Amino acid sequence: MASQHQNGGRSPELRHDPVTNRWVIFSPARAKRPTDFKSKNPQNPNPNNNSLCPFCIGNEHECAPEIFRVPPDLNDPNWKLRVIENLYPALSRNLECPCEEKQGMEFPGRVIGGFGFHDVVIENPVHSVQLSDMEPREIGEVFLAHKKRIQQIMSVQSIKYVQVFKNHGASAGASMSHSHSQILALPVIPSSVSARLEGMKEYFEKTGKCSLCEVRAKELVIDESSHFISIVPFAATFPFEIWIIPRVHSSHFHELDFEKMVDLGGLLKLMLRKISLQLNNPPFNFMIQTSPVQIKESESCYTHWFLQIVPQLSGVGGFEIGTGCYINPVLPEDAAKVMREVNLPMQD
Amino acid sequence: MASQHQNGGRSPELRHDPVTNRWVIFSPARAKRPTDFKSKNPQNPNPNNNSLCPFCIGNEHECAPEIFRVPPDLNDPNWKLRVIENLYPALSRNLECPCEEKQGMEFPGRVIGGFGFHDVVIENPVHSVQLSDMEPREIGEVFLAHKKRIQQIMSVQSIKYVQVFKNHGASAGASMSHSHSQILALPVIPSSVSARLEGMKEYFEKTGKCSLCEVRAKELVIDESSHFISIVPFAATFPFEIWIIPRVHSSHFHELDFEKMVDLGGLLKLMLRKISLQLNNPPFNFMIQTSPVQIKESESCYTHWFLQIVPQLSGVGGFEIGTGCYINPVLPEDAAKVMREVNLPMQD
Repeated sequence: MASQHQNGGRSPELRHDPVTNRWVIFSPARAKRPTDFKSKNPQNPNPNNNSLCPFCIGNEHECAPEIFRVPPDLNDPNWKLRVIENLYPALSRNLECPCEEKQGMEFPGRVIGGFGFHDVVIENPVHSVQLSDMEPREIGEVFLAHKKRIQQIMSVQSIKYVQVFKNHGASAGASMSHSHSQILALPVIPSSVSARLEGMKEYFEKTGKCSLCEVRAKELVIDESSHFISIVPFAATFPFEIWIIPRVHSSHFHELDFEKMVDLGGLLKLMLRKISLQLNNPPFNFMIQTSPVQIKESESCYTHWFLQIVPQLSGVGGFEIGTGCYINPVLPEDAAKVMREVNLPMQD
Repeated sequence: MASQHQNGGRSPELRHDPVTNRWVIFSPARAKRPTDFKSKNPQNPNPNNNSLCPFCIGNEHECAPEIFRVPPDLNDPNWKLRVIENLYPALSRNLECPCEEKQGMEFPGRVIGGFGFHDVVIENPVHSVQLSDMEPREIGEVFLAHKKRIQQIMSVQSIKYVQVFKNHGASAGASMSHSHSQILALPVIPSSVSARLEGMKEYFEKTGKCSLCEVRAKELVIDESSHFISIVPFAATFPFEIWIIPRVHSSHFHELDFEKMVDLGGLLKLMLRKISLQLNNPPFNFMIQTSPVQIKESESCYTHWFLQIVPQLSGVGGFEIGTGCYINPVLPEDAAKVMREVNLPMQD
């Protein structure tokens, strides 16, 4: 209860970010001190149990079909990463007539066939190595695999959006502890992506500027690299949520070259290590927030991709499910200050 | 793995409901059989520990200020329910200039003061009694308290939306195990509510009909009462999500009279008992999905309130956080069949 008094003098406020296009309630008086936030559910180091894990090197035969590996020689058993089909895909790559709208039941709704791609990137051959243990160059190679697979999938006409994401830790949705990320390609544009496009468009129409090119408020910046900036967003949905934003305007993640991917790898590694150190190694998700596969020329001036990192520190209740409005007890400028001051150097 | 084969022949599909206005992926092949869904985190019966719980009868002095009680006599210690302020409110009822937009930091976003109301309804004086243990008439009295408090709050001009919700179980967001619900009144219209209005408007413009008056597909119906129908929605976001919908068109929950509240209480009780029996007493949330306080005459023909029940059976990962699109392994018609067949009678 003592902690209630620490922030007791600060009034709640509501913030609206054009990028997320929704309101977030900030209630600092409800919170512990920002430095007191710790995961109650820390992730243990990953023991090397490669006899049981299908993602481990040597167990390739237990996986769904491989799409490609790095290095690309299929006969080279010493792979560094593999892209495979998800054994239990949410969408099916084998459906015919993917785009056709089906006749629903007697109900006012729409149905289309669940055509799409759901792939897994095994980020490292060794079970105990997490993404944040890898060198920036190796993380860059993971991003390169994402890019290559996105470019393959984009050639399928009915795919409208490709979401790259990572679940780390069981309570962040990971069913496998071996380091991996996922690629889910959809025949529709999901609602958060449409809402983001609308919000960024509205901001552009009002100001003539891209809302993510404008992000330079010192209080919100955590760290910077040659090509990226990491911030706590102005209206962060979750406590200690972090965005890594390319400095140069770009609509799509897959426009990135390898040099910048290595730079992104270094900044992502730093953010993940800071989160782990400061917040007691919490489960986390990251998402590459890119633009729909096809955008109009007129949309390219206000669409700007970024990487969103969300440490899983608290659950969701009926208010959030009901309204889509989240309550964040940590003001973004306070979270950014805490993360800025975690004493870890950037690695080259 | 055997269960993979049970639904292995069923292709995934995407469904879009005008009410939620977003796509949901249905992947029946990923699921266990619908009847195998059980909570891994069941709620224990609530022991009677009233010496420690501020919501228990006799401990009123440990609570934040009371707004009203039933029966209304403040000197009557034998109350049946109490409406009190939340001790740690997300929004503040004491802010001045609630509507004024503040100057933000050098960032492309908007800020307004966190004015609003955050109240708690203590649904029963006794610690061990849960909502589903109460008589339909007593549950009706809880709804009557929601209505009365909504009507009080509505008179404050800057309040735009009032969300009534219940968190049951720690992993559904409940910090207190004593049966209670919450009322959060906001100075903005949250994004899910705007999206719902848009979706329902679009459907009305296309068909001339209200999308929730149209819900009559037999496969989706679970049970019916005199004034309500309970269904699994056509594009349910969560497995075994249930909506209770008034048969007669009505935009706002607070238009309901007490007779219908008792009828709603009976159907809600039946649904909560079916969920508990079938799904191993899971944590759950329910939300009263009503319309913004002020709606235009033209909006009243397509806005239709309902009560949404969400059992907490699975967590959320990076895909859902990133896209707002959910993956539901249970087809709504399968979930409805399972719930229809749970052998429990409606109580009067």
